[in-house]
Amino acid sequence: MPIDGSLDSIQLRADRERVMGERSPHFYKETLHLERGKGVWLYGADGRQYLDFYNNVPTVGHSHPHVVNAISRQLAALNTHTRYLYNNAVEYADRLTATVADHLDVCLFVNSGSEANDVAWQISQVVTGNAGLLVMHNAYHGITQAGIAMTPAKGLEPARHVEEIPAPDDYRRAVATPAEAISDTEKAIAELRIREIDLAAFIVDSAMCSSGIPDVPDGFLGAIASTIHAAGGLVIADEVQSGFGRLGAMWGHELLGMQPDIVTLGKPVGNGHPLGVVITSRAVLDEFQAQVRLFSTFGGNPVSCAAGLAVLDVIEREDLITNSLTTGTYLREQLRQLAATQPLIGDVRGRGLLAGLELVTDRETKTPATAQTRELLELMRKNGALVGKDGEHAHILKLRPPLVTTRQHVDLFVDILARSLIEVST
Amino acid sequence: MPIDGSLDSIQLRADRERVMGERSPHFYKETLHLERGKGVWLYGADGRQYLDFYNNVPTVGHSHPHVVNAISRQLAALNTHTRYLYNNAVEYADRLTATVADHLDVCLFVNSGSEANDVAWQISQVVTGNAGLLVMHNAYHGITQAGIAMTPAKGLEPARHVEEIPAPDDYRRAVATPAEAISDTEKAIAELRIREIDLAAFIVDSAMCSSGIPDVPDGFLGAIASTIHAAGGLVIADEVQSGFGRLGAMWGHELLGMQPDIVTLGKPVGNGHPLGVVITSRAVLDEFQAQVRLFSTFGGNPVSCAAGLAVLDVIEREDLITNSLTTGTYLREQLRQLAATQPLIGDVRGRGLLAGLELVTDRETKTPATAQTRELLELMRKNGALVGKDGEHAHILKLRPPLVTTRQHVDLFVDILARSLIEVST
Repeated sequence: MPIDGSLDSIQLRADRERVMGERSPHFYKETLHLERGKGVWLYGADGRQYLDFYNNVPTVGHSHPHVVNAISRQLAALNTHTRYLYNNAVEYADRLTATVADHLDVCLFVNSGSEANDVAWQISQVVTGNAGLLVMHNAYHGITQAGIAMTPAKGLEPARHVEEIPAPDDYRRAVATPAEAISDTEKAIAELRIREIDLAAFIVDSAMCSSGIPDVPDGFLGAIASTIHAAGGLVIADEVQSGFGRLGAMWGHELLGMQPDIVTLGKPVGNGHPLGVVITSRAVLDEFQAQVRLFSTFGGNPVSCAAGLAVLDVIEREDLITNSLTTGTYLREQLRQLAATQPLIGDVRGRGLLAGLELVTDRETKTPATAQTRELLELMRKNGALVGKDGEHAHILKLRPPLVTTRQHVDLFVDILARSLIEVST
Repeated sequence: MPIDGSLDSIQLRADRERVMGERSPHFYKETLHLERGKGVWLYGADGRQYLDFYNNVPTVGHSHPHVVNAISRQLAALNTHTRYLYNNAVEYADRLTATVADHLDVCLFVNSGSEANDVAWQISQVVTGNAGLLVMHNAYHGITQAGIAMTPAKGLEPARHVEEIPAPDDYRRAVATPAEAISDTEKAIAELRIREIDLAAFIVDSAMCSSGIPDVPDGFLGAIASTIHAAGGLVIADEVQSGFGRLGAMWGHELLGMQPDIVTLGKPVGNGHPLGVVITSRAVLDEFQAQVRLFSTFGGNPVSCAAGLAVLDVIEREDLITNSLTTGTYLREQLRQLAATQPLIGDVRGRGLLAGLELVTDRETKTPATAQTRELLELMRKNGALVGKDGEHAHILKLRPPLVTTRQHVDLFVDILARSLIEVST
């Protein structure tokens, strides 16, 4: 009997395969059938509730009433596009640009982080006149054709115009110094030049989720950015995963001391409403729009802007960035205590309410516990908590609970994790 | 004094330029400031109401209560992603695939027509192993980097892997025969082969909006599709503009007798909610997903599916496809009557509730009336109706009112058009 084995769920899984394809990505051996969400909780068709420590999209909590009401009210009033004028697109662009560095003063609205990164990459090529791109090792930046080319995490043959920079990994190697970052960046730029490709941009998720959620040392990203600027390239901060308070600060790039030319937003920005934003300087955007007058039909429509504004409201009113920092620190303390008795946990990393647990079969050899990680995810689901995995060997437990997570939720979560770890096959 | 010259609107225009860039695309010399929409009407901050004959996105009418309620209800219950299981993604895929040919039986959900076309193009390359693409002359297929490469309408240097096929134009040339279509297609394929590029796909908006909304002769698209299939390529029907009843039938490709391998949807599919869909066969999708396990975070989320399902409900309940056909026919009859006394209207074309009016300064020379078209749009706005323009010389008036448009709305519109035409400078 499957975990949530009602006839309805079994039938729905078969139907899903029939109408969405048998290889459509899904979680768990028996895909989890959900019916409702509220705050940090998801409610299954099996009548059970699940602590959602996977999902960084509903960043202010599932079905937050302020966001639901803002979207619903705007839907009933007006939904149109940015070739007309309406108050909330301008208001939203104002509120967003007020949160970043002064030189980043304009917004271009799209519908996903993928579209935002695709457009940021187009801007970089037009503004520099070049075609070369640097990414972190095993980076992930989206699903458009241009996005997949900058996503070695997908395991496809690397695109000719893309070079990878090694990610920090002080669990397996020494702490990466800024000098190493500069040298690796220069090496990657030189590799492109051998192929007669000049540098257009460097793009980075400062949380480096798919690169294993490493601790990024002070000065590391700043050193890369300076090297990129010296070589005439633009720096794109992909804040789809690291932004909006996830790391205990509004922006990952600020926390890590990197000065970008373009910031891209996705996932949490509309708490699940499809919304992506490119923030850049007016000079850069004007230069791009002089060549490509890019317009997204849905991008920045009044409903999307209402969603975006409501999320900013909640982050401020409920002081969620402070909560991300303090509850995230508490989460890692609890995880490190657990690691003391659980040898599978090789390392505990992360910032704010992003945590990475590197699981290893042996603390000496640090062998990735890929199979055990997969099993642990299933066990945790059985025990009532949802988490993800990431990294090149899919052995890093990835925790990204909503920013409304409390210490009580953390205690509950760590208890579920502890019970699940005991059940993992040895 | 500007048309809607309240201080608020003037300030908002200045603010828009400041936070969205001075070249951000917008309509009218003084961008129209909107506050509310209902049915076929948009309401301005100037206290005036505008008949919306531009917008094919709110296809069942602005702020349709059934769509508003469906989205609002779902938002309050659950918003998550397709790696979990929930009823309405499966239901929506079922409902959508039931409307197309039997072999098109699976859906992949994204967030815009641009993303849908980008993914369809990725699928074509993976499945054929080739890199060549045919498009219609002056086609438009989206804003991602891959989309812009297939969009000669943007006026950029053509991408190396793209060749154009001439669009029909029986106003200026003879009616295009299927034999000519075959010959033009074979010529384009041969051009690609000279560059050592083999054919992956042909993509077409069967309404051919940016190619001038020509009358597409019977057998024209079918002949191209057969030639593409014989050459080993896939056929992509871009139904972003022509689908969902716009042409007086559910799908443009069906109406025009073309058998596609992939159908892409955008604009009207969620009545303004950011949603895009790729419909294809299970064999094609599985082959693609075996290489690229593509997953869109927002694509096909429960709220987007609720929006999509509600739009299908309204189209059925209000019999909007029949209305598109009958009211569209009435619209063209009235436009042709008007053309009899208005020499600026060179030709009236279109199907269903899509109409193209080719404006010419001289009916003998058929010189495109580009400046007059621009002026007419401003005059119509002043007189209370919103329309678009399209085509290579921006001299085709493009009418795409919501499918809930009645004969009374048409009469009102044609009256505004008649009054505006008289005011155009000569």
